[in-house]
Amino acid sequence: MAAVTAQWELASSLFDQLRRDGLDEPGVSRDPYGAGEQRAHATVAAVARQLGLEIEGDAAVNLYMTLRGRDASAKRVIVGSHLDSVPHGGNFDGAAGVVAGLVAVAALRQSGTILDRDLTVMGIRAEESIWFQVSYIGSRSALGALPDGALDVCRIDTGRTLAEHVAECGGDPEALSNRARCLDPARIGAYLELHIEQAPSLVEAGRPVAICTGIPGNFRYPDVRIEGSHDHVGLPRRFRRDAAMAGAEFAMALDRLWEEYEAKAVPMACTIGRFHTDAAAHGLTIVPGAFHFSLDVRAYDEAVLAELDARVDAIIAGIEQRRGVYFHRGPKARAAVGAVDASIKADLERCADELRIPVLQLGSPASHDAAAFAAAGVPMGMIFVRNENGSHNPREAMAMDDFMAGAALLTQYLATSYASR
Amino acid sequence: MAAVTAQWELASSLFDQLRRDGLDEPGVSRDPYGAGEQRAHATVAAVARQLGLEIEGDAAVNLYMTLRGRDASAKRVIVGSHLDSVPHGGNFDGAAGVVAGLVAVAALRQSGTILDRDLTVMGIRAEESIWFQVSYIGSRSALGALPDGALDVCRIDTGRTLAEHVAECGGDPEALSNRARCLDPARIGAYLELHIEQAPSLVEAGRPVAICTGIPGNFRYPDVRIEGSHDHVGLPRRFRRDAAMAGAEFAMALDRLWEEYEAKAVPMACTIGRFHTDAAAHGLTIVPGAFHFSLDVRAYDEAVLAELDARVDAIIAGIEQRRGVYFHRGPKARAAVGAVDASIKADLERCADELRIPVLQLGSPASHDAAAFAAAGVPMGMIFVRNENGSHNPREAMAMDDFMAGAALLTQYLATSYASR
Repeated sequence: MAAVTAQWELASSLFDQLRRDGLDEPGVSRDPYGAGEQRAHATVAAVARQLGLEIEGDAAVNLYMTLRGRDASAKRVIVGSHLDSVPHGGNFDGAAGVVAGLVAVAALRQSGTILDRDLTVMGIRAEESIWFQVSYIGSRSALGALPDGALDVCRIDTGRTLAEHVAECGGDPEALSNRARCLDPARIGAYLELHIEQAPSLVEAGRPVAICTGIPGNFRYPDVRIEGSHDHVGLPRRFRRDAAMAGAEFAMALDRLWEEYEAKAVPMACTIGRFHTDAAAHGLTIVPGAFHFSLDVRAYDEAVLAELDARVDAIIAGIEQRRGVYFHRGPKARAAVGAVDASIKADLERCADELRIPVLQLGSPASHDAAAFAAAGVPMGMIFVRNENGSHNPREAMAMDDFMAGAALLTQYLATSYASR
Repeated sequence: MAAVTAQWELASSLFDQLRRDGLDEPGVSRDPYGAGEQRAHATVAAVARQLGLEIEGDAAVNLYMTLRGRDASAKRVIVGSHLDSVPHGGNFDGAAGVVAGLVAVAALRQSGTILDRDLTVMGIRAEESIWFQVSYIGSRSALGALPDGALDVCRIDTGRTLAEHVAECGGDPEALSNRARCLDPARIGAYLELHIEQAPSLVEAGRPVAICTGIPGNFRYPDVRIEGSHDHVGLPRRFRRDAAMAGAEFAMALDRLWEEYEAKAVPMACTIGRFHTDAAAHGLTIVPGAFHFSLDVRAYDEAVLAELDARVDAIIAGIEQRRGVYFHRGPKARAAVGAVDASIKADLERCADELRIPVLQLGSPASHDAAAFAAAGVPMGMIFVRNENGSHNPREAMAMDDFMAGAALLTQYLATSYASR
């Protein structure tokens, strides 16, 4: 009981310090490769040092805090998450995963558990893509998988490049551009990430913790343009080639498609985030001849994604024919499904049973660094912690009890799956 | 035959001169109370003088060209339309109605027909609302019905007020602000307007001319805002309060409503001209929490308009309940149905029979100065002439044969309905 109290206090005081470090009312801003993220890294590293962990960095200035295990030659296990946040975000999105890693280390120490291999808690840089419009900058840099051109991208607020920002924080952009990697996927036994849930499924289910069943893959059309005909408001229906009406029909068809998959209990999501007539041409008495939208379709199974892709094509073809419009689709992006390792998932389920923590099986609503590890071939698992009011806003609300349940599950997994025999 | 050829040449050369006067490639620009409209008025007045008509003006600088009839004390008949155009519009929208009036005068002269009353051909100012965002400026000024505040409105391109523009062209803004009227509705027996059709119904029907059955009334919501919740792209469907999806459902419901009325052969139209997510907040991976649209619903019968109004309310209520969103409707505008005078319409039908011109019965797709006369209590009728490619664009295309058929119908109506006995 004393041990649990000590871990609670460690977590609680670390969250408090991180909140003070990032305070930018409303909420916190931990800007990547900027002052906010730097303060968070310094705070976390200081606690890791107190816990006796070895501190290392890499060319992308990721933070590695390692607890040595029995066999330094065995594939190490990494527990990590990101330390940046969106502007005016909450305190837990990202940071909770790093704090959980440190709590697990403290718990292992407290119980005198020695692992059979090194355990590295990783504070990952620049996960929130809103800043540089590039996904997984820190984790993909560590794995030598930063995409071409990423270093030249400018942060939306500062207008300075990722390369400049990395260099400013003591990193090595040249090494990154040469794809020098710090982590060899073949030398990583497992990557674990704890994260707050960004949807209210756990709130709805009344459970504190979920075990991730997968991170969605997606296909995206960032900028579709429907071409119809701008016409006079008096034009009868049969003559119209109304681009906005075509957009509305497309949105409704996708909504019904999603309903259909929900009814079959096949998890997916589709989001039409931008959906608009042309501000330069639209007007109260003009039939819209141009319409623009973005589309993000995500699912947890490549076969489902392929099926949805074909359905979207068929929906577009039908609307084009019925309404005399044309969908200029523009570029298309794809991201592979981030598969959860079956044995890690089974181990986490076993541990939840052992600790009598009621868990939900949950497809990740969002993308996470864990997907970058999965893409590199590293066995991956995730734990979600109940959280109210969504994420990416100052109102996110994770109860410490729930966090401690998630951290206990992580600790149990490490202690039992990598126990030194 | 010689007479018809002379009228054809009058019309043809007048259209040519008007096109040269307004040339502003692509198309013509006859900017109201500006150089374009001024040139058109000068050209039309010169032809009217050659035809021996009496020329007058009023405080709004409308142009009155009068052929005296037998009895100056009888209620006069006015044949008119507007001489302005949209920027880079076509040559016929508006001007055709004035040219038709002059052609009718020439034809009456040629045949030696004396009317029982004065016939005034009216060149109306500033009908196209795109310039000052005010409807029917010239005709309502003439009738003493210019709305409050209109004189202070600025022309979108010049930034100068209507009052300044009117004064510049020799008008009297002070008289307009005092609602001094030039025309007493009680002293007008009929207002006739010939106009190109702005939709392709006549093209589709293969007929040259239509007799108007009414000018639509409307109700408008110029700026509706749907309030939902901005959320993370990973949020499952059941938790979403997607404002754009609510907008799409609304648009589709209106499209079905229109289909339903089409099936009942009740003419109406609805147009959602602006239809857009919030440019400051929308993004590829954000569920839209705000959506904006404009709505224009028009019909030819006040009872139908009232019915549609109630249906729109019911559609909104249903969507609000199903999707957890709220429609902030903002201001609502209404315009009364512009009823066509039954006896004028019957006379026009009789004349079409007499001339063996195959006519269509057609609700006006658009608004016209004739509606301002109807609103003032003047018996009103309209003739539409077949026109390809819509209006408000340089591609409008009216064949001279069709125009001459419309002008012949107008002439026959004047000669037979107001023949001096």
